[in-house]
Amino acid sequence: MNSESAISPEDSPTKDIDEIVHQRVRLGLLTIANEARRVEFRFLQDSMDLTAGNLSQHIRVLEEAGLIRVIKGTQGRRPRTWVSVTKAGRQALHDEVASLKALIHRVERAGDPTT
Amino acid sequence: MNSESAISPEDSPTKDIDEIVHQRVRLGLLTIANEARRVEFRFLQDSMDLTAGNLSQHIRVLEEAGLIRVIKGTQGRRPRTWVSVTKAGRQALHDEVASLKALIHRVERAGDPTT
Repeated sequence: MNSESAISPEDSPTKDIDEIVHQRVRLGLLTIANEARRVEFRFLQDSMDLTAGNLSQHIRVLEEAGLIRVIKGTQGRRPRTWVSVTKAGRQALHDEVASLKALIHRVERAGDPTT
Repeated sequence: MNSESAISPEDSPTKDIDEIVHQRVRLGLLTIANEARRVEFRFLQDSMDLTAGNLSQHIRVLEEAGLIRVIKGTQGRRPRTWVSVTKAGRQALHDEVASLKALIHRVERAGDPTT
């Protein structure tokens, strides 16, 4: 297939991908949050090997988009922050998965890298 | 599953994802380039609905990483730029697909968003 052939603008393989969800750290964060009722900030930081500042920044983006909720509280006498995925966040993660499956299908249809 | 349970740092769902390849525009660009022997700059720009400056920037990142080659030439009397995926680029795209499949498996194991 050459560049003059069958691909049209509507076929852009990443047109349905939302960068809020697709970004590497946020995709990981949503994936972990989606597996639990809530996850603690420090746990996310350790799991994903992030600085507190970097994690906070990504949490803010997801919270502003309505994809996660941030819950402040205490555990014993220590202040704690938890994040919890919202219904919209769960849906956004599953939409991302659907877009990724379509992209994977397209890459695999193009053939094996070793041939 | 709560935040104190089975997830460990080594389990970060996106730890194997390379941001050079994963970024939305570059992932699309590599996917299209992987389907042809070479693709023309303007064709990529139209397919992905990008400004020339934005596309150039992403092409530079992929070229510097050795994932694509940039070929300058003419078609008729017009100057043209083509990009071509390298063997390393093809491999990187397939590595990304493998990482995405593992992530998808993990999201799907966590259950349906509507339940």
